[in-house]
Amino acid sequence: MTKRSIGPQTTVAVHPMVIVGTYAASGRPNAMAAAWTGIVSSNPPAVGVSVRPERYTHQNIVRTKAFTLSVPGEEHLAEADFFGIASGRDTDKFEATGLTPERATKVDAPYVGEFPLVLECSLIETVELGAHTQFIGEIVDVLVDEDCIGEGDRPDLLRIRPFLYDAFGFGYHSVGPRVGDGFKAGRRFLKR
Amino acid sequence: MTKRSIGPQTTVAVHPMVIVGTYAASGRPNAMAAAWTGIVSSNPPAVGVSVRPERYTHQNIVRTKAFTLSVPGEEHLAEADFFGIASGRDTDKFEATGLTPERATKVDAPYVGEFPLVLECSLIETVELGAHTQFIGEIVDVLVDEDCIGEGDRPDLLRIRPFLYDAFGFGYHSVGPRVGDGFKAGRRFLKR
Repeated sequence: MTKRSIGPQTTVAVHPMVIVGTYAASGRPNAMAAAWTGIVSSNPPAVGVSVRPERYTHQNIVRTKAFTLSVPGEEHLAEADFFGIASGRDTDKFEATGLTPERATKVDAPYVGEFPLVLECSLIETVELGAHTQFIGEIVDVLVDEDCIGEGDRPDLLRIRPFLYDAFGFGYHSVGPRVGDGFKAGRRFLKR
Repeated sequence: MTKRSIGPQTTVAVHPMVIVGTYAASGRPNAMAAAWTGIVSSNPPAVGVSVRPERYTHQNIVRTKAFTLSVPGEEHLAEADFFGIASGRDTDKFEATGLTPERATKVDAPYVGEFPLVLECSLIETVELGAHTQFIGEIVDVLVDEDCIGEGDRPDLLRIRPFLYDAFGFGYHSVGPRVGDGFKAGRRFLKR
Protein backbone atom coordinates (compact mmCIF):
# COMPACT_ATOMS: atom_id res chain seq x y z
CA MET A 1 0.00 0.00 0.00
CA THR A 2 1.34 3.42 -0.95
CA LYS A 3 1.90 5.65 2.04
CA ARG A 4 1.49 9.39 2.21
CA SER A 5 3.79 11.53 4.34
CA ILE A 6 1.63 13.92 6.40
CA GLY A 7 4.40 15.52 8.46
CA PRO A 8 4.74 15.49 12.25
CA GLN A 9 1.33 14.72 13.79
CA THR A 10 0.75 14.07 17.47
CA THR A 11 -1.19 10.83 17.41
CA VAL A 12 -0.83 7.12 18.01
CA ALA A 13 -4.41 6.60 16.71
CA VAL A 14 -5.83 5.51 20.09
CA HIS A 15 -5.73 7.96 22.99
CA PRO A 16 -7.17 7.40 26.46
CA MET A 17 -9.37 10.12 27.93
CA VAL A 18 -8.79 10.94 31.59
CA ILE A 19 -9.67 13.71 34.00
CA VAL A 20 -6.77 15.05 36.08
CA GLY A 21 -7.95 15.97 39.59
CA THR A 22 -5.99 18.46 41.71
CA TYR A 23 -6.50 20.89 44.57
CA ALA A 24 -5.88 24.62 44.06
CA ALA A 25 -4.01 26.59 46.73
CA SER A 26 -7.43 27.77 47.98
CA GLY A 27 -8.43 24.15 48.52
CA ARG A 28 -10.88 24.22 45.63
CA PRO A 29 -10.94 20.97 43.65
CA ASN A 30 -10.15 21.24 39.95
CA ALA A 31 -10.46 18.82 37.05
CA MET A 32 -8.84 18.96 33.60
CA ALA A 33 -9.31 16.65 30.60
CA ALA A 34 -6.20 15.00 29.16
CA ALA A 35 -5.62 12.57 26.30
CA TRP A 36 -1.84 12.67 26.40
CA THR A 37 -1.43 10.09 29.09
CA GLY A 38 -0.44 6.47 29.45
CA ILE A 39 1.29 3.93 31.64
CA VAL A 40 5.06 4.42 31.70
CA SER A 41 6.36 1.77 34.13
CA SER A 42 5.28 -1.40 35.91
CA ASN A 43 7.59 -1.12 38.90
CA PRO A 44 7.07 1.37 40.36
CA PRO A 45 3.60 1.28 38.82
CA ALA A 46 3.56 4.68 37.16
CA VAL A 47 1.51 6.79 34.78
CA GLY A 48 2.45 9.91 32.82
CA VAL A 49 0.20 12.81 31.97
CA SER A 50 1.25 15.86 29.98
CA VAL A 51 0.01 19.30 30.98
CA ARG A 52 0.78 22.72 29.50
CA PRO A 53 2.59 25.02 31.97
CA GLU A 54 -0.12 27.67 31.55
CA ARG A 55 -2.88 25.32 32.74
CA TYR A 56 -4.20 25.80 36.27
CA THR A 57 -3.66 22.08 36.90
CA HIS A 58 0.08 22.50 36.29
CA GLN A 59 0.72 24.75 39.28
CA ASN A 60 -1.54 22.57 41.42
CA ILE A 61 0.51 19.44 40.73
CA VAL A 62 3.79 21.29 41.28
CA ARG A 63 2.51 22.44 44.68
CA THR A 64 0.73 19.32 45.96
CA LYS A 65 2.91 16.71 44.20
CA ALA A 66 -0.23 14.67 43.75
CA PHE A 67 -3.04 14.11 41.27
CA THR A 68 -5.75 11.65 40.41
CA LEU A 69 -6.81 10.37 37.01
CA SER A 70 -10.55 9.67 36.79
CA VAL A 71 -11.65 7.68 33.73
CA PRO A 72 -15.13 8.75 32.57
CA GLY A 73 -17.73 6.32 31.27
CA GLU A 74 -19.48 7.14 28.02
CA GLU A 75 -22.52 8.48 29.90
CA HIS A 76 -20.35 11.38 31.10
CA LEU A 77 -18.74 12.22 27.77
CA ALA A 78 -20.13 15.78 27.71
CA GLU A 79 -18.92 16.54 31.24
CA ALA A 80 -15.48 15.13 30.43
CA ASP A 81 -15.28 17.23 27.27
CA PHE A 82 -16.25 20.32 29.28
CA PHE A 83 -13.34 19.64 31.64
CA GLY A 84 -11.13 20.22 28.59
CA ILE A 85 -12.82 23.44 27.49
CA ALA A 86 -13.18 25.52 30.67
CA SER A 87 -10.38 26.67 32.97
CA GLY A 88 -10.36 26.15 36.73
CA ARG A 89 -9.01 29.68 37.08
CA ASP A 90 -12.44 31.19 36.49
CA THR A 91 -14.80 28.22 36.72
CA ASP A 92 -15.68 25.70 39.40
CA LYS A 93 -15.98 22.83 36.95
CA PHE A 94 -17.52 20.48 39.49
CA GLU A 95 -20.24 23.00 40.27
CA ALA A 96 -20.86 23.69 36.57
CA THR A 97 -21.34 19.99 35.76
CA GLY A 98 -22.96 18.89 39.00
CA LEU A 99 -20.33 16.20 39.45
CA THR A 100 -18.95 15.37 42.88
CA PRO A 101 -15.36 16.01 43.98
CA GLU A 102 -14.34 13.22 46.36
CA ARG A 103 -11.18 13.42 48.41
CA ALA A 104 -8.69 10.69 47.54
CA THR A 105 -7.66 8.67 50.57
CA LYS A 106 -3.99 8.11 49.74
CA VAL A 107 -2.95 11.34 48.00
CA ASP A 108 -3.75 15.06 48.34
CA ALA A 109 -6.08 15.35 45.34
CA PRO A 110 -9.77 15.05 44.47
CA TYR A 111 -11.38 12.64 42.02
CA VAL A 112 -14.68 12.59 40.17
CA GLY A 113 -17.07 10.54 42.29
CA GLU A 114 -19.34 9.57 39.40
CA PHE A 115 -16.54 8.19 37.20
CA PRO A 116 -16.01 4.40 37.35
CA LEU A 117 -12.20 4.12 37.46
CA VAL A 118 -9.79 6.27 39.48
CA LEU A 119 -5.99 6.24 39.83
CA GLU A 120 -4.50 7.94 42.90
CA CYS A 121 -1.04 9.22 41.98
CA SER A 122 1.94 10.63 43.84
CA LEU A 123 4.36 12.72 41.74
CA ILE A 124 7.75 11.03 41.24
CA GLU A 125 9.17 12.64 38.07
CA THR A 126 8.71 15.86 36.11
CA VAL A 127 9.88 15.91 32.49
CA GLU A 128 10.01 19.33 30.79
CA LEU A 129 9.35 18.89 27.08
CA GLY A 130 8.63 22.34 25.65
CA ALA A 131 4.93 23.06 25.20
CA HIS A 132 4.09 20.40 27.79
CA THR A 133 5.37 19.13 31.10
CA GLN A 134 5.02 15.40 31.58
CA PHE A 135 4.13 14.61 35.17
CA ILE A 136 4.88 11.03 36.15
CA GLY A 137 3.00 9.72 39.14
CA GLU A 138 3.39 6.52 41.06
CA ILE A 139 0.01 4.80 41.10
CA VAL A 140 -0.54 4.25 44.82
CA ASP A 141 -4.10 2.93 44.54
CA VAL A 142 -6.84 2.28 42.01
CA LEU A 143 -10.56 2.56 42.77
CA VAL A 144 -13.25 0.88 40.68
CA ASP A 145 -17.03 1.09 40.89
CA GLU A 146 -18.36 -2.14 42.39
CA ASP A 147 -20.75 -2.63 39.46
CA CYS A 148 -17.82 -2.57 37.02
CA ILE A 149 -16.23 -5.65 38.56
CA GLY A 150 -16.80 -8.63 36.29
CA GLU A 151 -15.52 -12.10 35.59
CA GLY A 152 -12.62 -13.34 37.73
CA ASP A 153 -13.27 -10.47 40.15
CA ARG A 154 -11.53 -8.18 37.67
CA PRO A 155 -12.67 -4.78 36.38
CA ASP A 156 -14.57 -5.25 33.12
CA LEU A 157 -13.73 -2.76 30.36
CA LEU A 158 -17.17 -3.00 28.77
CA ARG A 159 -18.81 -2.14 32.11
CA ILE A 160 -16.48 0.81 32.68
CA ARG A 161 -17.35 1.99 29.14
CA PRO A 162 -14.33 4.26 28.68
CA PHE A 163 -14.09 6.14 25.40
CA LEU A 164 -11.09 7.23 23.44
CA TYR A 165 -9.97 10.42 21.76
CA ASP A 166 -9.30 10.58 18.02
CA ALA A 167 -6.79 13.36 17.33
CA PHE A 168 -7.34 13.15 13.55
CA GLY A 169 -11.08 13.76 13.70
CA PHE A 170 -11.26 15.70 16.99
CA GLY A 171 -13.84 13.22 18.20
CA TYR A 172 -14.52 10.54 20.75
CA HIS A 173 -15.07 6.87 19.98
CA SER A 174 -16.51 4.12 22.11
CA VAL A 175 -14.62 0.92 22.87
CA GLY A 176 -15.82 -1.95 20.68
CA PRO A 177 -16.04 -5.67 21.41
CA ARG A 178 -13.11 -7.88 22.35
CA VAL A 179 -11.41 -9.07 19.19
CA GLY A 180 -8.39 -11.02 20.45
CA ASP A 181 -6.49 -12.49 23.38
CA GLY A 182 -3.25 -10.87 24.50
CA PHE A 183 -0.07 -13.00 24.44
CA LYS A 184 -2.10 -15.75 22.76
CA ALA A 185 -3.42 -14.56 19.38
CA GLY A 186 0.12 -14.50 17.98
CA ARG A 187 1.25 -17.93 19.12
CA ARG A 188 0.58 -19.38 15.70
CA PHE A 189 3.76 -17.68 14.47
CA LEU A 190 6.01 -19.31 17.09
CA LYS A 191 8.37 -21.91 15.68
CA ARG A 192 7.56 -25.44 16.87
CA MET B 1 -21.63 4.26 43.55
CA THR B 2 -19.48 2.42 46.05
CA LYS B 3 -15.89 2.05 44.94
CA ARG B 4 -13.57 -0.82 45.63
CA SER B 5 -9.84 -0.28 46.22
CA ILE B 6 -7.91 -2.76 44.07
CA GLY B 7 -4.39 -1.53 44.85
CA PRO B 8 -1.83 -0.21 42.37
CA GLN B 9 -2.78 -1.39 38.86
CA THR B 10 -1.07 -0.23 35.70
CA THR B 11 -4.00 0.83 33.57
CA VAL B 12 -5.84 3.88 32.30
CA ALA B 13 -8.50 1.58 30.76
CA VAL B 14 -7.64 2.42 27.14
CA HIS B 15 -4.15 1.58 25.84
CA PRO B 16 -2.89 2.06 22.30
CA MET B 17 -1.13 -0.87 20.63
CA VAL B 18 1.98 -0.03 18.63
CA ILE B 19 4.94 -1.87 17.17
CA VAL B 20 8.35 -0.36 17.94
CA GLY B 21 10.70 -0.74 14.97
CA THR B 22 14.48 -0.64 15.44
CA TYR B 23 17.65 -1.88 13.79
CA ALA B 24 19.97 -4.28 15.63
CA ALA B 25 23.75 -3.73 15.50
CA SER B 26 23.84 -6.39 12.76
CA GLY B 27 21.45 -4.29 10.70
CA ARG B 28 18.60 -6.75 11.17
CA PRO B 29 15.24 -5.04 11.61
CA ASN B 30 13.35 -5.79 14.82
CA ALA B 31 9.82 -5.11 15.99
CA MET B 32 8.38 -5.17 19.51
CA ALA B 33 4.78 -4.69 20.65
CA ALA B 34 4.11 -1.95 23.21
CA ALA B 35 0.96 -0.68 24.90
CA TRP B 36 2.69 1.69 27.29
CA THR B 37 2.93 4.57 24.92
CA GLY B 38 1.27 7.88 24.23
CA ILE B 39 1.78 11.43 23.06
CA VAL B 40 3.73 13.51 25.58
CA SER B 41 4.15 16.92 23.95
CA SER B 42 2.82 19.02 21.07
CA ASN B 43 5.92 21.18 20.50
CA PRO B 44 8.21 19.48 19.86
CA PRO B 45 5.70 16.86 18.69
CA ALA B 46 6.77 13.94 20.84
CA VAL B 47 5.72 10.45 21.82
CA GLY B 48 6.84 8.26 24.73
CA VAL B 49 7.21 4.51 24.72
CA SER B 50 8.33 2.43 27.68
CA VAL B 51 10.66 -0.53 27.16
CA ARG B 52 12.20 -2.90 29.70
CA PRO B 53 16.03 -2.69 29.77
CA GLU B 54 16.29 -6.42 29.08
CA ARG B 55 14.41 -6.14 25.78
CA TYR B 56 16.42 -6.32 22.57
CA THR B 57 14.69 -3.15 21.40
CA HIS B 58 16.15 -1.22 24.37
CA GLN B 59 19.77 -1.55 23.30
CA ASN B 60 18.81 -0.82 19.70
CA ILE B 61 17.22 2.52 20.61
CA VAL B 62 20.13 3.45 22.86
CA ARG B 63 22.51 2.80 19.96
CA THR B 64 20.59 4.26 17.00
CA LYS B 65 18.72 7.00 18.91
CA ALA B 66 15.80 6.31 16.61
CA PHE B 67 12.66 4.20 16.40
CA THR B 68 9.39 3.97 14.55
CA LEU B 69 5.93 3.22 15.91
CA SER B 70 3.76 1.28 13.46
CA VAL B 71 0.06 1.09 14.34
CA PRO B 72 -1.47 -2.21 13.24
CA GLY B 73 -4.95 -2.51 11.79
CA GLU B 74 -7.26 -5.18 13.19
CA GLU B 75 -6.47 -7.51 10.29
CA HIS B 76 -2.94 -7.86 11.67
CA LEU B 77 -3.85 -8.39 15.31
CA ALA B 78 -2.21 -11.82 15.49
CA GLU B 79 1.06 -10.58 13.99
CA ALA B 80 1.09 -7.61 16.37
CA ASP B 81 0.49 -9.90 19.34
CA PHE B 82 3.33 -12.13 18.19
CA PHE B 83 5.66 -9.11 18.20
CA GLY B 84 4.99 -8.98 21.97
CA ILE B 85 5.61 -12.69 22.58
CA ALA B 86 8.83 -13.47 20.70
CA SER B 87 12.25 -11.84 21.19
CA GLY B 88 14.34 -10.36 18.40
CA ARG B 89 17.39 -11.93 20.02
CA ASP B 90 16.51 -15.37 18.68
CA THR B 91 13.78 -14.68 16.13
CA ASP B 92 13.53 -12.68 12.94
CA LYS B 93 9.99 -11.54 13.65
CA PHE B 94 9.47 -10.11 10.18
CA GLU B 95 10.44 -13.42 8.63
CA ALA B 96 8.24 -15.37 11.04
CA THR B 97 5.14 -13.28 10.24
CA GLY B 98 5.84 -12.59 6.57
CA LEU B 99 5.51 -8.86 7.17
CA THR B 100 7.78 -6.40 5.39
CA PRO B 101 10.41 -4.24 7.10
CA GLU B 102 10.58 -0.92 5.26
CA ARG B 103 13.37 1.56 5.91
CA ALA B 104 12.12 4.85 7.34
CA THR B 105 13.21 7.82 5.25
CA LYS B 106 13.88 10.31 8.05
CA VAL B 107 15.26 8.18 10.89
CA ASP B 108 17.51 5.12 11.19
CA ALA B 109 14.79 2.56 11.90
CA PRO B 110 12.47 0.17 10.06
CA TYR B 111 8.68 0.14 10.07
CA VAL B 112 6.07 -2.47 9.24
CA GLY B 113 5.11 -1.91 5.62
CA GLU B 114 1.67 -3.52 5.93
CA PHE B 115 0.56 -1.37 8.89
CA PRO B 116 -1.53 1.70 8.02
CA LEU B 117 -0.04 4.37 10.31
CA VAL B 118 3.65 4.96 11.07
CA LEU B 119 5.46 7.50 13.27
CA GLU B 120 9.15 8.13 12.52
CA CYS B 121 10.84 9.18 15.77
CA SER B 122 14.18 10.61 16.78
CA LEU B 123 15.19 10.06 20.42
CA ILE B 124 15.21 13.28 22.49
CA GLU B 125 14.80 12.12 26.13
CA THR B 126 15.43 8.98 28.13
CA VAL B 127 13.64 8.63 31.47
CA GLU B 128 14.76 5.77 33.73
CA LEU B 129 11.82 4.60 35.81
CA GLY B 130 12.78 1.27 37.35
CA ALA B 131 11.40 -1.73 35.48
CA HIS B 132 11.02 0.38 32.35
CA THR B 133 12.88 3.06 30.47
CA GLN B 134 10.66 5.63 28.85
CA PHE B 135 12.10 6.66 25.50
CA ILE B 136 10.74 9.98 24.24
CA GLY B 137 11.03 10.56 20.53
CA GLU B 138 10.39 13.65 18.50
CA ILE B 139 7.89 12.74 15.77
CA VAL B 140 9.70 13.85 12.64
CA ASP B 141 7.17 12.45 10.18
CA VAL B 142 3.98 10.43 10.01
CA LEU B 143 3.07 8.07 7.16
CA VAL B 144 -0.48 6.93 6.42
CA ASP B 145 -1.80 4.45 3.90
CA GLU B 146 -3.46 6.33 1.04
CA ASP B 147 -6.66 4.30 1.44
CA CYS B 148 -6.96 5.43 5.08
CA ILE B 149 -7.26 9.09 4.12
CA GLY B 150 -10.87 10.17 4.48
CA GLU B 151 -13.00 13.27 4.81
CA GLY B 152 -11.19 16.61 4.77
CA ASP B 153 -8.07 14.85 3.49
CA ARG B 154 -7.47 13.62 7.05
CA PRO B 155 -6.60 10.11 8.20
CA ASP B 156 -9.81 8.29 9.17
CA LEU B 157 -9.65 6.26 12.38
CA LEU B 158 -12.26 3.76 11.22
CA ARG B 159 -10.27 3.05 8.06
CA ILE B 160 -7.03 2.62 10.00
CA ARG B 161 -8.92 0.20 12.28
CA PRO B 162 -6.51 0.36 15.22
CA PHE B 163 -7.30 -1.78 18.23
CA LEU B 164 -6.60 -1.18 21.89
CA TYR B 165 -5.18 -3.23 24.71
CA ASP B 166 -7.19 -4.01 27.83
CA ALA B 167 -4.81 -4.58 30.74
CA PHE B 168 -7.59 -5.87 33.01
CA GLY B 169 -8.69 -8.65 30.67
CA PHE B 170 -5.41 -9.20 28.77
CA GLY B 171 -7.31 -8.73 25.55
CA TYR B 172 -7.67 -6.52 22.52
CA HIS B 173 -10.74 -4.47 21.66
CA SER B 174 -11.74 -2.82 18.42
CA VAL B 175 -12.49 0.89 18.19
CA GLY B 176 -16.23 1.54 18.14
CA PRO B 177 -18.23 4.27 16.42
CA ARG B 178 -17.78 7.97 16.98
CA VAL B 179 -19.87 8.99 19.97
CA GLY B 180 -19.04 12.68 20.45
CA ASP B 181 -17.28 15.80 19.19
CA GLY B 182 -14.16 17.05 20.94
CA PHE B 183 -14.23 20.57 22.41
CA LYS B 184 -17.92 20.75 21.52
CA ALA B 185 -19.88 18.07 23.39
CA GLY B 186 -19.26 19.89 26.68
CA ARG B 187 -20.22 23.39 25.62
CA ARG B 188 -23.65 23.01 27.18
CA PHE B 189 -22.00 23.47 30.60
CA LEU B 190 -20.42 26.81 29.72
CA LYS B 191 -21.99 29.78 31.50
CA ARG B 192 -23.80 32.13 29.12
